[in-house]
Amino acid sequence: MKLPGPEEFEASTAHENVPPAELHSGFGPNASPDGPSDIDSRELVISEDPLLFIQLNELLGWPQALEWRETGRWVLFEEKLEVGAGRWSVPHVPTLTLPSLQNLRSLLAEGLVLLDCPAQSLLELVEQVIRVEVLSPEVRGQLQALLLQRPQHHIQPSATRPCWGSTLLQNTSHDEDVPLKAQNPLKQRLPPGAEAAAVLAGQLGFLAQPLGAFVRLQNPVVLGPLTEVALPSRFFCLLLGPPTTGRCSYHEMGRAAAVLLSDPQFQGSVRRASDLHDFLAALDAFLEEMTVLPPGRWDPTVRIPPPKCPPFQHKRLPSHPREVKGRAGRRHPRGPPELQRSGRLFGGLVQDVHRKAPWYLSDFLDALHPQCFSAVLYIYLATVTNAITFGGLLGDATEGAQGVLESFLGTAVAGAAFCLMAGQPLTILSSTGPVLVFERLLFSFSRDYSLDYLPFRLWVGIWVATFCLVLVATEASLLVRYFTRFTEEGFCALISLIFIYDALGKMLTLARAYPIQRPGSPAYGCFCQYPSPRENESQWTMVKLEDRDDILSINLGLVNASLLPLPECVQQGGHPRGPGCHTIPDVALFSFLLFLSSFLSAMALKRVKSSHLFPSMVRKVFSDFSSVLAILLGCGLDAYLGLATPKLLVPKEFKPTLPGRGWLVSPFGTNPWWLSVAAALPALLLSILVFMDQQITAVILNREEYRLRKGAGFHLDLFCVAMLMLLTSALGLPWYVSATVISLAHMDSLRRESRACVPGEAPHFLGIREQRLTGLAVFTLTGVSVFLAPVLKFIPMPVLYGIFLYMGVAALNSIQFMKRVQLMLMPAKHQPDLLLLRHVPLGRVHLFTAIQLACLGLLWIIKSTPAAIIFPLMLLGLVGVRKALEWVFSPQELLWLDELIPEEEGSTPEKELEPEHLFSGSDSEDSELKYQPKTPEINISVN
Amino acid sequence: MKLPGPEEFEASTAHENVPPAELHSGFGPNASPDGPSDIDSRELVISEDPLLFIQLNELLGWPQALEWRETGRWVLFEEKLEVGAGRWSVPHVPTLTLPSLQNLRSLLAEGLVLLDCPAQSLLELVEQVIRVEVLSPEVRGQLQALLLQRPQHHIQPSATRPCWGSTLLQNTSHDEDVPLKAQNPLKQRLPPGAEAAAVLAGQLGFLAQPLGAFVRLQNPVVLGPLTEVALPSRFFCLLLGPPTTGRCSYHEMGRAAAVLLSDPQFQGSVRRASDLHDFLAALDAFLEEMTVLPPGRWDPTVRIPPPKCPPFQHKRLPSHPREVKGRAGRRHPRGPPELQRSGRLFGGLVQDVHRKAPWYLSDFLDALHPQCFSAVLYIYLATVTNAITFGGLLGDATEGAQGVLESFLGTAVAGAAFCLMAGQPLTILSSTGPVLVFERLLFSFSRDYSLDYLPFRLWVGIWVATFCLVLVATEASLLVRYFTRFTEEGFCALISLIFIYDALGKMLTLARAYPIQRPGSPAYGCFCQYPSPRENESQWTMVKLEDRDDILSINLGLVNASLLPLPECVQQGGHPRGPGCHTIPDVALFSFLLFLSSFLSAMALKRVKSSHLFPSMVRKVFSDFSSVLAILLGCGLDAYLGLATPKLLVPKEFKPTLPGRGWLVSPFGTNPWWLSVAAALPALLLSILVFMDQQITAVILNREEYRLRKGAGFHLDLFCVAMLMLLTSALGLPWYVSATVISLAHMDSLRRESRACVPGEAPHFLGIREQRLTGLAVFTLTGVSVFLAPVLKFIPMPVLYGIFLYMGVAALNSIQFMKRVQLMLMPAKHQPDLLLLRHVPLGRVHLFTAIQLACLGLLWIIKSTPAAIIFPLMLLGLVGVRKALEWVFSPQELLWLDELIPEEEGSTPEKELEPEHLFSGSDSEDSELKYQPKTPEINISVN
Repeated sequence: MKLPGPEEFEASTAHENVPPAELHSGFGPNASPDGPSDIDSRELVISEDPLLFIQLNELLGWPQALEWRETGRWVLFEEKLEVGAGRWSVPHVPTLTLPSLQNLRSLLAEGLVLLDCPAQSLLELVEQVIRVEVLSPEVRGQLQALLLQRPQHHIQPSATRPCWGSTLLQNTSHDEDVPLKAQNPLKQRLPPGAEAAAVLAGQLGFLAQPLGAFVRLQNPVVLGPLTEVALPSRFFCLLLGPPTTGRCSYHEMGRAAAVLLSDPQFQGSVRRASDLHDFLAALDAFLEEMTVLPPGRWDPTVRIPPPKCPPFQHKRLPSHPREVKGRAGRRHPRGPPELQRSGRLFGGLVQDVHRKAPWYLSDFLDALHPQCFSAVLYIYLATVTNAITFGGLLGDATEGAQGVLESFLGTAVAGAAFCLMAGQPLTILSSTGPVLVFERLLFSFSRDYSLDYLPFRLWVGIWVATFCLVLVATEASLLVRYFTRFTEEGFCALISLIFIYDALGKMLTLARAYPIQRPGSPAYGCFCQYPSPRENESQWTMVKLEDRDDILSINLGLVNASLLPLPECVQQGGHPRGPGCHTIPDVALFSFLLFLSSFLSAMALKRVKSSHLFPSMVRKVFSDFSSVLAILLGCGLDAYLGLATPKLLVPKEFKPTLPGRGWLVSPFGTNPWWLSVAAALPALLLSILVFMDQQITAVILNREEYRLRKGAGFHLDLFCVAMLMLLTSALGLPWYVSATVISLAHMDSLRRESRACVPGEAPHFLGIREQRLTGLAVFTLTGVSVFLAPVLKFIPMPVLYGIFLYMGVAALNSIQFMKRVQLMLMPAKHQPDLLLLRHVPLGRVHLFTAIQLACLGLLWIIKSTPAAIIFPLMLLGLVGVRKALEWVFSPQELLWLDELIPEEEGSTPEKELEPEHLFSGSDSEDSELKYQPKTPEINISVN
Repeated sequence: MKLPGPEEFEASTAHENVPPAELHSGFGPNASPDGPSDIDSRELVISEDPLLFIQLNELLGWPQALEWRETGRWVLFEEKLEVGAGRWSVPHVPTLTLPSLQNLRSLLAEGLVLLDCPAQSLLELVEQVIRVEVLSPEVRGQLQALLLQRPQHHIQPSATRPCWGSTLLQNTSHDEDVPLKAQNPLKQRLPPGAEAAAVLAGQLGFLAQPLGAFVRLQNPVVLGPLTEVALPSRFFCLLLGPPTTGRCSYHEMGRAAAVLLSDPQFQGSVRRASDLHDFLAALDAFLEEMTVLPPGRWDPTVRIPPPKCPPFQHKRLPSHPREVKGRAGRRHPRGPPELQRSGRLFGGLVQDVHRKAPWYLSDFLDALHPQCFSAVLYIYLATVTNAITFGGLLGDATEGAQGVLESFLGTAVAGAAFCLMAGQPLTILSSTGPVLVFERLLFSFSRDYSLDYLPFRLWVGIWVATFCLVLVATEASLLVRYFTRFTEEGFCALISLIFIYDALGKMLTLARAYPIQRPGSPAYGCFCQYPSPRENESQWTMVKLEDRDDILSINLGLVNASLLPLPECVQQGGHPRGPGCHTIPDVALFSFLLFLSSFLSAMALKRVKSSHLFPSMVRKVFSDFSSVLAILLGCGLDAYLGLATPKLLVPKEFKPTLPGRGWLVSPFGTNPWWLSVAAALPALLLSILVFMDQQITAVILNREEYRLRKGAGFHLDLFCVAMLMLLTSALGLPWYVSATVISLAHMDSLRRESRACVPGEAPHFLGIREQRLTGLAVFTLTGVSVFLAPVLKFIPMPVLYGIFLYMGVAALNSIQFMKRVQLMLMPAKHQPDLLLLRHVPLGRVHLFTAIQLACLGLLWIIKSTPAAIIFPLMLLGLVGVRKALEWVFSPQELLWLDELIPEEEGSTPEKELEPEHLFSGSDSEDSELKYQPKTPEINISVN
């Protein structure tokens, strides 16, 4: 998943967890080639200047064979020509030496700085530059010839697709003399409107003194073959002089000039400079702001890879509205406008409908993009996998009261209906982990008291819908702000643990059902006995067989026997005899192998994405479809060996899994009437669960950093969930709420981002294609997949248990809580440089983690008692514990460890929330960090 | 393994693969507290100056509550006080701003620079500093009081053991008033003789103008409580002034002063400076050499972790003998003095004996160190694991002609004898992979021609010893220089692949021996039939049973039967009947589980070392004993389930595994006499193998970067191997040569290194404890372990196959060849920034890899034909292929891709070997890289 997620937690630099919104600022172009004009991204860009491609041409071969050769290029980062390997180096942060910058400064201060030069061609430009210099006519002629010489470029052929598609077509029609294949691939990676700058540097023996010139062209023109990319040049810099040696060569000065031009601030200032004074001021500003590394501790030859998060350019401006916004954004992460109280009954719901209605048409039109097709395919496969897994598990848990068919049908109906009506149509509905756990408890409760399950469940559903309507009416969704990360993580951790525990438990049950036979164990013998003509059949029943040992100890005497396999034996009127007839060898171990292989392969495939092998497309497929591939692998393995492993139970026809019931659940069945009232009690618990599960997901999906433009609909979403709850209960289908992980995957597959076009640049996140069509298509396909049922019966259950385990482990690994638990096991020396650890004493961090662990332990104990069904109440209790923590931890500590619970809207005193500053001036780093919004972790709950 | 190894291959910085020798230079202290004075390490240290601890005390709380507070400290890297968390930050490379350095320079240039100040206490020092400044008497008094105020230190309690043990004891006896537990743990981590420097900075409202002072004390004295560590202070720097703001605060200036002092060159210059001019010159030299990062591309708040390889300080000196040595060292990696030709018969052997004899006594005395005990334990366990694994596999391969008992005995005898006599006693002898492969081929050859194996093998051994003696006499070991990495990697890759192939093949054989029963398969029925009184026993034999289907199709009629388990059935005179009686279920799948679990757990445990969890001691144990732990885990799993998996075959008594033979092999057996002559042919092949295997290991072990002081003995080693070959052949024990991996592990467990004492510093490699006693102890213990035999029979064979697979995979992963194969699958964008790729075109790299792959394919094909036994000859053929590559690749390319084969000693033209420089001045990075010795990869062969 590409959304800024917990994987950024471990970054060792100070810039952990910067959301994509921040990544964008200061990186020149804000072109958004696909999609409507993007107001959000436009406001983030500070510099509206075109992107600059800078090329360094060096003069080599003095004195015999003078030639210009391209040895470096810059867009954002430096690429150096690896002469030996004949390729461009990896993009890296350029490092300079101070003398080269200083010499450059003095050379240009004494030399020529020509701003708004009107030259229209390279010849005119060269003439203008040379005219000003004090040179003998002979030298002038030589120099002019030299400067007009065609430089050697290194153009690396590449199979990169053009990033700015439309531009390419325009260009090829213009320069028709250049064959398409010979075009420089770099050009296709630069945004339209990009300009070029050429730096020419080198030593030239016939010059008596150094010659420095900097030219800004009034109107950028293509300066012949000067730059490898035929872009109009805006800047031109010439640095020539008699031979020198040392660190301050012309090569270094040329690099310094190029690096200067690649700096957005310097570039902006020079574009606006009106005289030499402005120019030098810009250079001095650069010198003042640059970072210096001591020579004794840092080797300048080390190439620093481009930082994941480039510096925030807005910080370099004296004051900028973004700063305030960024800080405010961090402090009220829970405060989108959708969560403002209206104060009227159903006021929130009405507002939601009003907010969403104007977008309804565009919700279908915005889906007309090829990206949506692949999103549908991806999410469809994930949804079907979920439907199979959860359907199978539900069938297991409810002993066939529901099953895979119900799961498919319910997913299709509920999902599609939600996509059509909901406030946030990007949400993917699924029978989620918490609800599954509750359903299992509800079933075992009703079994214990011999209730008719489905009618009882119908009443629970009716009550839940009622309670949810009350919650909608009272705008209770606003309470979601009290769910901090502490609550979310407790919720997620408990459910993950239940998943892991259940998966392992299922496997143990399986091992007991198919016992492994040890050598010498009594389960060997088996043969087919026929009713003998002389002896009657009661021989076996006459002898009272206490246990297996008895079977062995008796001599059967004379029997009429054969060794036919079991089915044929019965067919021929015989009876299989002996303990060995009823054991199926190899199944337990093979099931375990299937379990392990599906778990491990799902884990491994998920990780393929971060590998460096194979093209990124292949890696993405492996990673995105890891569960599907793991299930297919397990099925293949099972089919190959052909053992009688337990398989997924699928009805042969299109009818409910429970034999003898119609699609509509009868409202009472065999239950007493008062049970319909008593169902309100478990319904209350389930309502809490549904509310928490639904709203935690909704808040995560609607976070500011995903830049949704069409607004959220918390109340409308809950309303839809309540109505669907009614429907699914009546039809005996599973219950559905929003699933975090799969919804995030849905959003991720619809993200609009600029391609990583410029070397070394990370792609910018532009927004998400908000529409209802992809979800609708996914669930329609799911509905059609009911006819897949005959294929599904080949799926072995251990494979599904393996995927189940994988889901639990993956969810557990995704929460910050687990990283803090790991911190407890880590020697202080090896701990990563987390912002958290910079601001909170280690002991306090451990105390917070220990309290979380204790809460989790308590929840687990409750879950293991007969009172297990009240666990939703206990989850809600986490909110209370979190509130109580305010007596133990200071607001500063909670700010770093968790989030702050807003006291009352807008009344939080600003001062208290500031990270502590006991003294001024000594914590410049911290003041920088304030501009970084806090971790936008995805606290995924199990889907 | 900590020796510089292939894991450094992927470093993304320019400093890949710098051996520990280089790590040391320029890092202040060269104290080697344990062991004799170390000439090698001394020569590497440029600066003999004591290590400096620098502390920044800041003046905070103006105007109300002035106090000095420690906010930063430096030894090599910067540690910043995290005020909120109350801990020191992780050590990081300090970053500065240029204005802070410039302001510091001007402040000190105008202020007071006092060199060789004779002050004896803080009071005297403060008086001297203040006296010079132009201050009013009142301000002077206030200032003096302020400067004498006790600063607040942040002393982090820690459980670190003292690094400089003796020093601690001295210190505690001196400052007896300080209780031991309250002592600063940092002090224990600084080497004896370390000095302190204090930088005092801050803004002071009552000062009218800035006040800067720098003092070098003539004799360092402890300046009261000025620094957190009570060290004698050498430098004192005071930076005070009226309040300012911005990037150039006194905090930043103080940091700049501290960073300056932490620079080894600046520090050295200032220690020797005689006046202000020298001081400023040193500061300017620092400014000139520092690295500058542009503000638009690098965020100064990012903390850069200490580089793995700090910059080479010698590069900063104008000229230094190390440079030349470093370059020469790289060019002739094969040229130790031990490999100079003497020109006489056995001349090399005689020289070896002469070289080693003077060290013989010290070879025992040098072992008197506690580290040797843990080395013995570690290597003993590894050796026993090897003996078990290879013994088991040998027993498998030779169908019991040899076995585990022979393996134990042979390892003990050969290993101990080698340790006592050899030229390089650090070598651990083992039956290595290549020789095992050859033995397997030899056995199947002799079986195919119905030869008496052991007598035939004896003659092969005799001939091999003879050929090896000839090789010793002719000083053939010198030919080892023609084995480049190309040869070594081909050798290693082939053997690794054979390991992997064999391990998987064994498992398939096992699956065939214990077939998995599918449902409905005819292998179900089984019962116990007794001879019936009426029917004779021939009923079964009368009917001709063609196959299993026949068994099933017949009706047995009336039989007298029971369901007793097999052994009891036979005991009671019955006969087990039915196809199900002879299949053992579950064993195949369980064996596969054992195989997988031992392979995966060995892999996982090996990787524990690079995890961050648990103290490093625990991680080291897990990683070092990964094979042993994996075997134990497998045995435990097997014992728990109690299935009849195939186990290791161990004789019940102390006698040869082959029944009926004595310990001495009879010279002819049933073979014809001429076979003793014909054995010369396979012996020739084996001699090549032994020579290559032995010498490749010997060259790797004796590489310069391991800093062995007692010299090598290539000829003597080969002589010992030849003699042992004779002995083991006569006794029918396995054949032994040096094993690379385990010998390197032996050296690694004996490495002497400084602890990572100073924050952020990597430990320095000081050398290896060269002695004969650890090896001797290891093999004595192995000999005693023969009595472990009764325990060994519990080891399941699939576990050993799993370890076998692990060895193959680990060896394959360790060679650079595999990384180059991966490069072929990697999109250019994701390729790591390897030096190789900077200098050789990608197509040429791929061509080289493809040729290696083709050679490997050819070797594999030959290995699969009946001519497999000639594979040693083909391995030798790799040397020829490598020579032929000189026509395809330029020397520059081969220099980066492989190594150069020296033409004739000293005659290689220098110029040719230089990496190409088509033009001057543009490749400063490359010229830096020249000082880095080339990759000292360990091309391990399978042990």
